[in-house]
Amino acid sequence: MHIVAVGGSDAGISAALRARELDPSAEVTVVVADAYPNFSICGIPYYISGEVGHWSNLAHRTHADLEATGMRLRLDTLATAIDVEGRRLALRASDGSETTLEYDELIVGTGALPVRPPIAGLDSLGAADGVHVLHSMGDTFALERSLDRIEPATALIVGAGYVGLEMAEGLTTRGIAVTQVEMLPEVLPTVDPELGALVHAELDRHGVTVHTRSTVTAISRDESGPARLHVDGTGPDGAPLAWDVDLVLVVVGVRPDTDLLVAAGARTGPRGAVVVDETMATGLPHVWAAGDCVVTHHRQLGVTYLPLGTTAHKQGRVAGENALGGQARFAGSLGTQVVKVFDLVAARTGLREHEATAAGFAPVSSTATPDDHKAYYPGAQPITIRITGDRDTGLLLGAQLVGPRGTETAKRVDTYATALFHGTTVDGFSELDLSYTPPLGSPWDATQMATQAWVRDHLLPRHVLSG
Amino acid sequence: MHIVAVGGSDAGISAALRARELDPSAEVTVVVADAYPNFSICGIPYYISGEVGHWSNLAHRTHADLEATGMRLRLDTLATAIDVEGRRLALRASDGSETTLEYDELIVGTGALPVRPPIAGLDSLGAADGVHVLHSMGDTFALERSLDRIEPATALIVGAGYVGLEMAEGLTTRGIAVTQVEMLPEVLPTVDPELGALVHAELDRHGVTVHTRSTVTAISRDESGPARLHVDGTGPDGAPLAWDVDLVLVVVGVRPDTDLLVAAGARTGPRGAVVVDETMATGLPHVWAAGDCVVTHHRQLGVTYLPLGTTAHKQGRVAGENALGGQARFAGSLGTQVVKVFDLVAARTGLREHEATAAGFAPVSSTATPDDHKAYYPGAQPITIRITGDRDTGLLLGAQLVGPRGTETAKRVDTYATALFHGTTVDGFSELDLSYTPPLGSPWDATQMATQAWVRDHLLPRHVLSG
Repeated sequence: MHIVAVGGSDAGISAALRARELDPSAEVTVVVADAYPNFSICGIPYYISGEVGHWSNLAHRTHADLEATGMRLRLDTLATAIDVEGRRLALRASDGSETTLEYDELIVGTGALPVRPPIAGLDSLGAADGVHVLHSMGDTFALERSLDRIEPATALIVGAGYVGLEMAEGLTTRGIAVTQVEMLPEVLPTVDPELGALVHAELDRHGVTVHTRSTVTAISRDESGPARLHVDGTGPDGAPLAWDVDLVLVVVGVRPDTDLLVAAGARTGPRGAVVVDETMATGLPHVWAAGDCVVTHHRQLGVTYLPLGTTAHKQGRVAGENALGGQARFAGSLGTQVVKVFDLVAARTGLREHEATAAGFAPVSSTATPDDHKAYYPGAQPITIRITGDRDTGLLLGAQLVGPRGTETAKRVDTYATALFHGTTVDGFSELDLSYTPPLGSPWDATQMATQAWVRDHLLPRHVLSG
Repeated sequence: MHIVAVGGSDAGISAALRARELDPSAEVTVVVADAYPNFSICGIPYYISGEVGHWSNLAHRTHADLEATGMRLRLDTLATAIDVEGRRLALRASDGSETTLEYDELIVGTGALPVRPPIAGLDSLGAADGVHVLHSMGDTFALERSLDRIEPATALIVGAGYVGLEMAEGLTTRGIAVTQVEMLPEVLPTVDPELGALVHAELDRHGVTVHTRSTVTAISRDESGPARLHVDGTGPDGAPLAWDVDLVLVVVGVRPDTDLLVAAGARTGPRGAVVVDETMATGLPHVWAAGDCVVTHHRQLGVTYLPLGTTAHKQGRVAGENALGGQARFAGSLGTQVVKVFDLVAARTGLREHEATAAGFAPVSSTATPDDHKAYYPGAQPITIRITGDRDTGLLLGAQLVGPRGTETAKRVDTYATALFHGTTVDGFSELDLSYTPPLGSPWDATQMATQAWVRDHLLPRHVLSG
């Protein structure tokens, strides 16, 4: 049995690890397009900020760790075509030489590519000009070279999603004055604007200049001015905006990298991602796929596209098991996410109202601001928690949290995620036996105070005592 | 409708709050033995340590807050007898005057009393001698007076459970040299000794002198010596131990305070606690009971006695709803607990092996030490996590965690508690969609790395691929 995985990031490596773990006799080869297998893409902002000492520390496992599991790595090797019938993969090495690799089962984890928004001038500018995207280790090294060469005093970041926010913090930490431009009404558009506003205020507090409801329309080199790049944009009122900066970073999301699978005949679904079922089967015989290149089975939404590292790990594990003949199924995502922005933590799981409405629910929400622990113990701080539940069934649909570092906000979202996984009601959340000690919680945990506020707003008194 | 609650602590007040919340027309009276309704008993160690500025801050709600809900409080009033047939409660005020109070529904939350271990001399010594128990606000004030009067340089604490450990920290924080004596093989006997040993080391690190497998046998006044009290004991090898200290604190647990209910005809169960069903009915007509005076319905163990503030809040809420004619049921405890000891946090939920064996399970355990977040991001620290699961069914049975402050250990136990509540398997825990960002987690959360270690130790390869 020879299992071949394409892709050295979360999905491909997880699949290979799982296969080796379950069947140490299985031959497993991972084809990696660059020289950086099993690197933590999510860690790049912390390398750029200077908090990670050496780039090699970003590896979840070293090359030697990976080889010790018995898998083989083919680095700097691009998979160019799948011969589905012949079960052969065409490969091109970095020196241009071409070979083929036979497989019994193939797992494709080609991941995603950064979206390049329609900005005039963007296509003709690049790292040499101080204009960057940021998705791979190659992008990281290019940015690092620019930072060393240009020593920018100013930078403009297009996009205020997870990576944009982490990079705003990272570049600020390096002493660079950051301007951040977000098209949508508020930063961190994956949470409701009232919570995003808290993150916005945190950016303000740390000196980031934020423009929301604003777009960047053009970037050009400006040899004459004090800075290297001239950026044009449009503000919320349609009025023109302009900035002169030393560096531009474009981080506006990703799209699935599906060329290899589509050329082999795979079907595509939401956002152009390759369709797989819960077993991670593509429908092409002996071809599995996982990670950011495939659709996401969401427990509440059905089939969607929601690329996340956590999901890629789980999907890869399922694919690795099933390539061996297993019966694993991906249990589905809840879109659980968290980001740290300076001293604030923002997290979500499940659905927001507009998503729930689109999925056929009858969502209503409440926001509460319980303290993370008993107020009498020093250091208590409020966590803003927004609960969305179904007005008709009482089901918990989602939770969004923003709290200061040190309030265990990142793991409080996990309590909601675990309850959501099991389909609990908002009212039933109060039945959970959660931990309490005054320095770290409350007799009703902050998470329960928030669900109780929802119940007071939307259920009482009609539901209780009627049963 | 007149609802009367006896007891001003968690259960009684929760019942009264719930009744007023659900039916603002209900007349609700709470009979409180002392002058401190709704005080956080769990906060006492932090008042003694000096971290809570004023004792009144320990109130979950002020007297005015409580009255604003529409409940009436009868402070400094002892309920002495229940006339079940006549639905009348006999009361004695602090001036000795006796009255009766009529009720339609009665909720008894008399709580617990500190256990007094068999130590020679203990019964004849008290606060005036610098010998204290610690359970009520009255005990707290007595201890505070001793601390002010004696200005102890040294103190001995009998017991190293939650309160004993918190008080060891609290007295150490006040600059007192603390000796702690625990009968059992390790401190914090509510977790396995290998985890308790980590707490023991934390006590050592902060200068607490700990004696395990040791008992205190006698306490006497010692007018001649440098310290006020002479304490005799027995060490692990049966050898005599002796200490001279300025203050002794005895905190070895609690027993249910059931006199009122037993005299009225209530049945008792485990540890002498009053038997109630999941509706918190005592079996006596129109008499409900909740909190530390009643048995605990445990989701895994059935009926036991496990007094905890979190449980008392939930039970009180159920009793308050049902006294109004509701249909609420206490969903059951999992024994979820957490304690902070200096800079360490120890938590547990569910069962340990010996408890699981006694309950008919086939428990096996594994211990893992995953980092709280990605090692490349500064400040990563290991959490020791011990997972217990059923060898035959694969069910998750329990989790114990010890981690430094700042590792979100207190809320990570909640993820396990929520999964346990829903009866998940250890292997299935990996399906949970938990949050990840490098500064605060890992693609597989630390909680999942620990369950995966259990699966590797106890299930692989026999279970996977066989399905």
